[in-house]
Amino acid sequence: MDDIEAIKILKARYFRTVDLKDWPALRALFCDDATVDMSQAGGAILGPDDFLESVMSTLANVLTVHHGHMPEIMLSGSTASGIWSMEDLVRYPDGRELHGYGHYHDAYEKHGSDWKIKSSRLTRLRVDITDAAESPTTA
Amino acid sequence: MDDIEAIKILKARYFRTVDLKDWPALRALFCDDATVDMSQAGGAILGPDDFLESVMSTLANVLTVHHGHMPEIMLSGSTASGIWSMEDLVRYPDGRELHGYGHYHDAYEKHGSDWKIKSSRLTRLRVDITDAAESPTTA
Amino acid sequence: MDDIEAIKILKARYFRTVDLKDWPALRALFCDDATVDMSQAGGAILGPDDFLESVMSTLANVLTVHHGHMPEIMLSGSTASGIWSMEDLVRYPDGRELHGYGHYHDAYEKHGSDWKIKSSRLTRLRVDITDAAESPTTA
Repeated sequence: MDDIEAIKILKARYFRTVDLKDWPALRALFCDDATVDMSQAGGAILGPDDFLESVMSTLANVLTVHHGHMPEIMLSGSTASGIWSMEDLVRYPDGRELHGYGHYHDAYEKHGSDWKIKSSRLTRLRVDITDAAESPTTA
Repeated sequence: MDDIEAIKILKARYFRTVDLKDWPALRALFCDDATVDMSQAGGAILGPDDFLESVMSTLANVLTVHHGHMPEIMLSGSTASGIWSMEDLVRYPDGRELHGYGHYHDAYEKHGSDWKIKSSRLTRLRVDITDAAESPTTA
Repeated sequence: MDDIEAIKILKARYFRTVDLKDWPALRALFCDDATVDMSQAGGAILGPDDFLESVMSTLANVLTVHHGHMPEIMLSGSTASGIWSMEDLVRYPDGRELHGYGHYHDAYEKHGSDWKIKSSRLTRLRVDITDAAESPTTA
């Protein structure tokens, strides 16, 4: 498999493991010295273990859907950069909903034959919040 | 064209032919012994002809939008597996709307130079139903 | 980078530069003799400079999100065709929202080592308009 395809699958697994709450698989996608920067989206800049702890506690009882679109991946030897358009949908236990749109700005690093996330920074185009009373009914 | 790209186009055509109701083109994407498993999404497990008949009657007067995202395709000679994140939007004639999210778990098989869908199973993260009165107005 | 990947990145930049209102970068993605056909979507058929002028004035105070999905790109030497599924979300200053779905039907041309958009035609599956009072609150 070529490197660009491998990086797309890496990021696909990021989104899928978040939504399926497969925390060990999510952690394995990051370099040990990775940084995840959610500061522009109202969050923190965290290393991979703190990020995992934060996600595990924040999303424990939350239904999420995360989608990534139209990657722009640039290879440079055993490192790469990537921009992804994204959309997320978060339903909180009290029925409130967050529907967000933006871009991920990532760096990747190849370790042996595996690509891992070295850094990831989220910027937002738009975030909508819907009251519980106005949110759609889940079947 | 490489095999992974060919499989992505196969699945793109699945979504596009469903939404454009191009039934013969949709049928041609499946192996004759394919199975489509919608049992986790409230549907049946069907062969390709029964699936087509079901889709043709269910969607005849229904406006649909189906999107697939972030494929994880793994090749193994002339077979392959694929996981896709998905979103669908279904507007029924009475104005009710279904908005769903989940994953397709597929198998593919190469016949000559053409890839076809050998099996497809849908799992759901979330399905929202909106009443006709609360659905947006289509221009 | 292979040609298909280069064309996917070209289109990703189209969507990203529209949403970030990076007009010079958007213009640079088109051939000088390109045509953009929005006639089926209630718009005009325009050359690249008129298209840019139209987009710049229409979207100046408008928040947009454009996503492209599941490209079907067919190469033929230094030209190529592409079909993309698409979704757009447009928030007007008065609070009204447009939420659209459809397909782009594109042609591309290679100039030196760069792919550019030769023509782009939008067809719609569905367009929803939401009143300001019913639109979600942006955080």
